Amino acid sequence: MTLEPGLVDRLVRAALEEDLHQAGDLTSELTIAADAVLRAAVIARQAGTVAGLPLAERAFLLLDDRVRFHASVEDGAEVTAGQTLASIEGPARAIMTGERVALNFLGQLSGVASLTAAYVRAVSGTGTRILDTRKTHPGLRAVEKYAVRMGGGHNHRFGLYDGVLIKDNHIAAAGGIARALDRVRGRVPALTGIEVEVETLAQVEEALAGGATTLLLDNMAPDLLRDAVALVAGRARTEASGGVTLDSVGAIAATGVDFISVGALTHSAPTLDIALEVLG
Amino acid sequence: MTLEPGLVDRLVRAALEEDLHQAGDLTSELTIAADAVLRAAVIARQAGTVAGLPLAERAFLLLDDRVRFHASVEDGAEVTAGQTLASIEGPARAIMTGERVALNFLGQLSGVASLTAAYVRAVSGTGTRILDTRKTHPGLRAVEKYAVRMGGGHNHRFGLYDGVLIKDNHIAAAGGIARALDRVRGRVPALTGIEVEVETLAQVEEALAGGATTLLLDNMAPDLLRDAVALVAGRARTEASGGVTLDSVGAIAATGVDFISVGALTHSAPTLDIALEVLG
Amino acid sequence: MTLEPGLVDRLVRAALEEDLHQAGDLTSELTIAADAVLRAAVIARQAGTVAGLPLAERAFLLLDDRVRFHASVEDGAEVTAGQTLASIEGPARAIMTGERVALNFLGQLSGVASLTAAYVRAVSGTGTRILDTRKTHPGLRAVEKYAVRMGGGHNHRFGLYDGVLIKDNHIAAAGGIARALDRVRGRVPALTGIEVEVETLAQVEEALAGGATTLLLDNMAPDLLRDAVALVAGRARTEASGGVTLDSVGAIAATGVDFISVGALTHSAPTLDIALEVLG
Amino acid sequence: MTLEPGLVDRLVRAALEEDLHQAGDLTSELTIAADAVLRAAVIARQAGTVAGLPLAERAFLLLDDRVRFHASVEDGAEVTAGQTLASIEGPARAIMTGERVALNFLGQLSGVASLTAAYVRAVSGTGTRILDTRKTHPGLRAVEKYAVRMGGGHNHRFGLYDGVLIKDNHIAAAGGIARALDRVRGRVPALTGIEVEVETLAQVEEALAGGATTLLLDNMAPDLLRDAVALVAGRARTEASGGVTLDSVGAIAATGVDFISVGALTHSAPTLDIALEVLG
Amino acid sequence: MTLEPGLVDRLVRAALEEDLHQAGDLTSELTIAADAVLRAAVIARQAGTVAGLPLAERAFLLLDDRVRFHASVEDGAEVTAGQTLASIEGPARAIMTGERVALNFLGQLSGVASLTAAYVRAVSGTGTRILDTRKTHPGLRAVEKYAVRMGGGHNHRFGLYDGVLIKDNHIAAAGGIARALDRVRGRVPALTGIEVEVETLAQVEEALAGGATTLLLDNMAPDLLRDAVALVAGRARTEASGGVTLDSVGAIAATGVDFISVGALTHSAPTLDIALEVLG
Amino acid sequence: MTLEPGLVDRLVRAALEEDLHQAGDLTSELTIAADAVLRAAVIARQAGTVAGLPLAERAFLLLDDRVRFHASVEDGAEVTAGQTLASIEGPARAIMTGERVALNFLGQLSGVASLTAAYVRAVSGTGTRILDTRKTHPGLRAVEKYAVRMGGGHNHRFGLYDGVLIKDNHIAAAGGIARALDRVRGRVPALTGIEVEVETLAQVEEALAGGATTLLLDNMAPDLLRDAVALVAGRARTEASGGVTLDSVGAIAATGVDFISVGALTHSAPTLDIALEVLG
Repeated sequence: MTLEPGLVDRLVRAALEEDLHQAGDLTSELTIAADAVLRAAVIARQAGTVAGLPLAERAFLLLDDRVRFHASVEDGAEVTAGQTLASIEGPARAIMTGERVALNFLGQLSGVASLTAAYVRAVSGTGTRILDTRKTHPGLRAVEKYAVRMGGGHNHRFGLYDGVLIKDNHIAAAGGIARALDRVRGRVPALTGIEVEVETLAQVEEALAGGATTLLLDNMAPDLLRDAVALVAGRARTEASGGVTLDSVGAIAATGVDFISVGALTHSAPTLDIALEVLG
Repeated sequence: MTLEPGLVDRLVRAALEEDLHQAGDLTSELTIAADAVLRAAVIARQAGTVAGLPLAERAFLLLDDRVRFHASVEDGAEVTAGQTLASIEGPARAIMTGERVALNFLGQLSGVASLTAAYVRAVSGTGTRILDTRKTHPGLRAVEKYAVRMGGGHNHRFGLYDGVLIKDNHIAAAGGIARALDRVRGRVPALTGIEVEVETLAQVEEALAGGATTLLLDNMAPDLLRDAVALVAGRARTEASGGVTLDSVGAIAATGVDFISVGALTHSAPTLDIALEVLG
Repeated sequence: MTLEPGLVDRLVRAALEEDLHQAGDLTSELTIAADAVLRAAVIARQAGTVAGLPLAERAFLLLDDRVRFHASVEDGAEVTAGQTLASIEGPARAIMTGERVALNFLGQLSGVASLTAAYVRAVSGTGTRILDTRKTHPGLRAVEKYAVRMGGGHNHRFGLYDGVLIKDNHIAAAGGIARALDRVRGRVPALTGIEVEVETLAQVEEALAGGATTLLLDNMAPDLLRDAVALVAGRARTEASGGVTLDSVGAIAATGVDFISVGALTHSAPTLDIALEVLG
Repeated sequence: MTLEPGLVDRLVRAALEEDLHQAGDLTSELTIAADAVLRAAVIARQAGTVAGLPLAERAFLLLDDRVRFHASVEDGAEVTAGQTLASIEGPARAIMTGERVALNFLGQLSGVASLTAAYVRAVSGTGTRILDTRKTHPGLRAVEKYAVRMGGGHNHRFGLYDGVLIKDNHIAAAGGIARALDRVRGRVPALTGIEVEVETLAQVEEALAGGATTLLLDNMAPDLLRDAVALVAGRARTEASGGVTLDSVGAIAATGVDFISVGALTHSAPTLDIALEVLG
Repeated sequence: MTLEPGLVDRLVRAALEEDLHQAGDLTSELTIAADAVLRAAVIARQAGTVAGLPLAERAFLLLDDRVRFHASVEDGAEVTAGQTLASIEGPARAIMTGERVALNFLGQLSGVASLTAAYVRAVSGTGTRILDTRKTHPGLRAVEKYAVRMGGGHNHRFGLYDGVLIKDNHIAAAGGIARALDRVRGRVPALTGIEVEVETLAQVEEALAGGATTLLLDNMAPDLLRDAVALVAGRARTEASGGVTLDSVGAIAATGVDFISVGALTHSAPTLDIALEVLG
Repeated sequence: MTLEPGLVDRLVRAALEEDLHQAGDLTSELTIAADAVLRAAVIARQAGTVAGLPLAERAFLLLDDRVRFHASVEDGAEVTAGQTLASIEGPARAIMTGERVALNFLGQLSGVASLTAAYVRAVSGTGTRILDTRKTHPGLRAVEKYAVRMGGGHNHRFGLYDGVLIKDNHIAAAGGIARALDRVRGRVPALTGIEVEVETLAQVEEALAGGATTLLLDNMAPDLLRDAVALVAGRARTEASGGVTLDSVGAIAATGVDFISVGALTHSAPTLDIALEVLG
């Protein structure tokens, strides 16, 4: 899914206000003539997967709608070091003032997309999909999950409100998997799936019997994962999680799980180095 | 400086709304009895420097003010793997519902503080201070800059509004360093400093003559940095930037610059692994 | 699920601002002494099912936290004409000022709950559940869906974001049910269900083959509904919709569908007559 | 009076956010090509009075300003079942995504206008005007009162801030009608009218003597209403209220009161059935 | 009428955010120990009429609810130079941080109240009341009109929404006073008064015939004002406006007009000099 | 620096909402035909310095983007009584509805600019600059400080967040000037200046030794000011404040101080009389 224009504008506006507050861009206002124009290019200084171009564009346009922003690639593109991502032309003040907000979105979301793409490549050839988590930067979840999709990953639930995930503490509070599922089944919104964390093969059966649509296999060794997948036999979807790294993810995928969720996609992705270069 | 309570509450409320939206925490509402209580501990699973405890506390308290959150350490503390950061007691639903928002703030800000602390250690013994940049996550600048302070770093300007930084493109637009400073001097708010990016020793002199209070020495080799610092001779403060890593930062500090700014502190810090463990 | 306190406060605050704006409650401020106190009761003047007491309580407390609001019943209770729902005691001005906002929430949500309860009674004895729709009053969806639950109904999706419902126009745009499902399957968030509108038994099979988890049987006659339910045979859940009335709902439920969705629950429920009576 | 564009946009934006939240319209994004266009018609499936077309239009345009929305009638028009209210053409995704928000405003406000028009017809030939009340859906008062006007009704005050209405409890708190009016007269904003609830003919005189500009004759039988109107003899305006139905309103109007206020106009109006039909 | 607590908190919060933004009170955070406490007094350095104490109190309490603010006088009090208005005790940082926001509200609103009180004194002994206008500082209308009341003045309408004032340009657009009143009468909310600007005695009669409840006598010389008042003879209320000064207001009042409106009360009132003095 | 478009729109929108609320401009809607157009001029009725034209323009355009607003002068221009500042053409309703909001911004900000210009003229020929303070109207600081710049003045800090100003109470809390500066130096953002209030020549030296970049010479007699300036000898900048009037400011400037700050610029500037005249 693409990004809602309303959401993009709210986020970009808030970022501009954070950077400008009351006094605005003191430097550009004082050093650049009001009628100066310039051309610039957005350049990737590192290879990776791009995400965030629509937010970058809006950072300039919300400052001055005379800016022309022409993207050379689309979000989701794999780019090489030195590749031009977009060309910009228009009022020099707006371009200088919007640069940092634009690049913050673009670099950080491209970082998420690039790390996701690395995980996706590491499981290629298996049917396993890479999932994100709710371990996102506060306020940026929608765009970080978008970046995960741009990197070829898939989204887990967006919040506590659009999916049930019964974890160990919920099971303990309810008095067991069966009782937890009894309380939940038929009371969630009609199109909402139910996932249950299981630790043993016995729990796998208990969760399936209770109507779980997805099983969370947390921190299981590959052998146990394989057994669990075999036991499930397509009766529900399976998600592995816990301590996943680029080194280990291939072996986990080889167990046949449907999903592997990776918190690092959004909580620890280094930025992708992207810069704005003024052409004249 | 500490965090403004008003700012903390705005950020935490927005994060809770992002996670709960209209339907709320489907899982906890259905599996946990309304009157259930529990005790839990916030545990560091990695050594590092803590930041974000006041935000974590508010995540629980804004959901239910009967939660008791007792921090065992203060922001800025260096902790070891396995160390308890806080104990929590109160309504089980609120604790389960607030867990992810609390840990997202705490893990990510502690990640920033820990990376900052690593840079600070790498320059210890010199007089050089580690600075952050404006390369922060949109909407989180105030708390990420707070985390930098908790890690022993110092803040560069917060936005375009509270400091003048005349970079190469501004210089080009104004027609040189001297002309740029002429336009700026005496027109910025009375307590706002003026920094100029310089690339040569001749520019150092031009900037000092024009009234710059800080010089940005961008991407200079250590030898040139050293010459620039000698030339400045205390007439302004000096900041090195560009391509700084944990490996290179010590050598840069040895040149005698006052500041080294590091974008990675906020744009690429991996999260610190912190978990909530239910005790009963 | 209960109502999030944050959501309740946002709605009630907005309603109070709508009613008070800048000049406030001219009448109460001028006619009632600042220190006057009173006791009052919230009385149902009609039998029905109550919903909205927590919002009513907040309407008074956000005006003056010295008000004591004691609910005699809980949301979801069936009450008789004349029954006391709550007693209130405290500053007279706050009680008079908050009365209308409190009763607007309480009367309208109880209206939704009461109409829902009537539909639920009409299908009692069958396994069919009554669902709401997205045909809610703008801005009030979360509380109107809550009122549906209080009346014994169940929630369909909360918005376009937490469930996929492929209707005739989507099918036409995608080029058929199978192609629509191909585009959707594996690309929605991992815990999100997929419902497809079907009009014929052939489409039922096509939708099941494509991975639909729920089938929308729109405007089908009871006989066709019965055949569709038989054909599905538990492979997915079934929802009947279209032209449902209190008269027809029983016959529809008798076809064995899992759900019947009723837009009227939220778009056409008359208010339940509830009044505040001052006791002295 | 028409609707303020600022108000319309705030309401429509909030309704879209409620429906789209972070993940947006999952179904349309996945099943409809980004460049697909369509034509559709907004059709009344029931006879009634239309209100809300400007809000419906904005629901589509705020999603994509390339949508063309051409209204065939204006708000306030009486339409027949099957009549086209508007034609729409543009990007298919925006039209499908905006459909429910547009129809929720249009159906519900047309419901209010239609019920109002029924009351207005029932008193036609008398000089009596039909008034709304403050019994509106929270957050929607301005548009529901607009719908009342579109149905031929008139507005009572918009909130507690733009009119004084001294009810029985205020009278009791002040120690009588005369004392209440003494406290109010000359202290309200200069263009704000003062209405007093009266129960007896003696109170009518007391209220007139005290400077009331309108008298609220609550729950009076027609004979008493007639006597009160005769006694007032044009010295103030008269409003009847309480238990008004379509059956009883004609007889009440025949008493000669200036206004009859009807809470049901806004708290219990069933939606008008209006649909969007895709033409191709 | 007093000030709505909700309104007060919104205004004070916004003022604090304006002053603190992201970095907060750099000076107090760094120079004052976190646990330092102090006592201070709010002192009038000029004689005048006080308004704004509830806003001043909230400025401190919203920063730290441990502050104790004890007002020695109430809003509306006339005070002498040197008089203590309030004593404050609590955390030193919160008191120093909140000082300017508190004093800005208190000084500016007391300035409005004091200027109003001067006008009220200048017409004392006549029955004429001093009115404010809509010439207020944007965003501060509700509190500036409150300050006018504290100074003994009365409020004209709060906005374009709660009173009809037909000025010369409206009359021209409608084609005369009679036609303007025809369009308005019976179409405004039921408790909303109608004022018409008149320039001649003939227009006075035309406006009265058309149902105006108040007449605006703009820029009339005293003799003409007197004639107009005599002609009206109590059939409507009369308001003089235009070029009113403290010197001229008495003579205008002597003409017998009901109201004199003075824009300067809110657009040109000098601040009242009020300071915070630290006691230890 | 100019005004940020985002800030302007937020302020103007809020002012329009304050004036229109739910019911809108009752008078214009009812008396002016929807398709009426008019031409008008914005006229200065007093000589002065203009500020606020961009806000005035937006007041009309946010109501109806068909309005054409053509400014004849720019902010900062000195104008004579009777001079036309702008001509306006477009829908009559929007122009009448926006008039007051436009003139409130324009008159009040031009009042600030005009008073500032008077102070600037009074010190002309000296090198002293006139500074504003934080004594602004809550919510309007950014635009009032902009108006000061338009009048030829300069801005002191915008808030507590962008400059350190160590006053007497901070000094007392820290235990002296030297200790206060020790706590502050090196801990504020890297481009933030540090000002210290001094009362004696000994304190001047202490502050300079501690690294102050600006000295606040509060309420010093001219002779002492002169001595202080001589002692400082360019080692820091000097600001005089306290009891400055148009009569005294010239003598203060003659002492050689760099800045004189004047609270009255923003807290006590009378409005500049500016009107809208309809041309036809």
